[in-house]
Amino acid sequence: VARLPPLPFVYPILDLALLDGRGVEDVAAALAAGGAGLLQVRGKGVADGALLDAVRRAQGVARARGLDVIVNDRPDVALAAGAAGVHVGQDDLPPAACRRLLGPAAIVGFSTHSFDQLVAAAREPVDYIAVGPVFATATKADAEAVVGTALLRAARAHTRLPLVAIGGITAANAALAVQAGADAVAVISAVLGGGDVAQRTRALRAAVAGAS
Amino acid sequence: VARLPPLPFVYPILDLALLDGRGVEDVAAALAAGGAGLLQVRGKGVADGALLDAVRRAQGVARARGLDVIVNDRPDVALAAGAAGVHVGQDDLPPAACRRLLGPAAIVGFSTHSFDQLVAAAREPVDYIAVGPVFATATKADAEAVVGTALLRAARAHTRLPLVAIGGITAANAALAVQAGADAVAVISAVLGGGDVAQRTRALRAAVAGAS
Repeated sequence: VARLPPLPFVYPILDLALLDGRGVEDVAAALAAGGAGLLQVRGKGVADGALLDAVRRAQGVARARGLDVIVNDRPDVALAAGAAGVHVGQDDLPPAACRRLLGPAAIVGFSTHSFDQLVAAAREPVDYIAVGPVFATATKADAEAVVGTALLRAARAHTRLPLVAIGGITAANAALAVQAGADAVAVISAVLGGGDVAQRTRALRAAVAGAS
Repeated sequence: VARLPPLPFVYPILDLALLDGRGVEDVAAALAAGGAGLLQVRGKGVADGALLDAVRRAQGVARARGLDVIVNDRPDVALAAGAAGVHVGQDDLPPAACRRLLGPAAIVGFSTHSFDQLVAAAREPVDYIAVGPVFATATKADAEAVVGTALLRAARAHTRLPLVAIGGITAANAALAVQAGADAVAVISAVLGGGDVAQRTRALRAAVAGAS
């Protein structure tokens, strides 16, 4: 896990659909200033060329602040942008295919939504496993059933791979996720949903650090 | 152009949304039997893992028949499947990025819909340029304005790169496209829209061969 930031960390997902008029660079800079440990860029429904452009712009800002960028779903965009890695879900290109495309030094993350998926994921060449949705979320329209902290605890008992809690995480409940075994909390609305992005990221970081 | 099949050729696009219950392997086999020169697999709206699976299955059939497979939009899927190349549009990953990802031996094709785009495309590291829609088409909901054979003629006068005519091409009008300068005709409905796939491909091949 030498490539991941020190655990536990805050892992914001910069969803291009939630920019709400803000610039990618500005948001990335605020997330970095707030102490994000890793930054994921997600552009579902965005044209591939525009996604590549956004990843490059986020990276221009993030890298200068020591923050690595992960691309959601798309190893080709990660490769083209020279990003640090990719995060894929159950229906995306398989983690093993991503690993072959990106090489051993890249970060490959994989989403799971059940214990069976977690067990299978732990056998894949991944750097972390995301588990969720831990809490109810409104950000993902097609979100799976809430798995609660119970799945995090079961996952923690099963694998030593870093676990990323995702789904409905806020500064108010982030500590619960970490106490259940999460090494990181992935957040979208909690940082992009309104208010000062850097300050909200900082609050999450404090919650996560205080819980570990 | 050593990697492309002998010109002119028929270039079917196996659109996974148009399978209509038919198996990918069966359709690919019929297209090969009908004399397709190159086969593109397109899966817009299909999950990435399912697209990869379909490309692999099409390829298992096509390669054994000497037919190369090109993946629409996705160089990562092409790489993961070991496909012959990728076809991208104006809003996708740029051809130069695809070339870097896939290497010099891959086929990279690029769509254009105007003379300005054609001129720009001719400066990119592409193996062919698609021009269209040459005729009216119903297959692509967001299709651009019909460019007619006029753009094909202008393109032919501008570049020696192989030109692929696309959009509304049938056995009845394919000769017009070739006479206007096309080196290949890309077809979807004309082969997948009903009837015997191999026979419809054969009819297109005869039309194209007779026109050149």
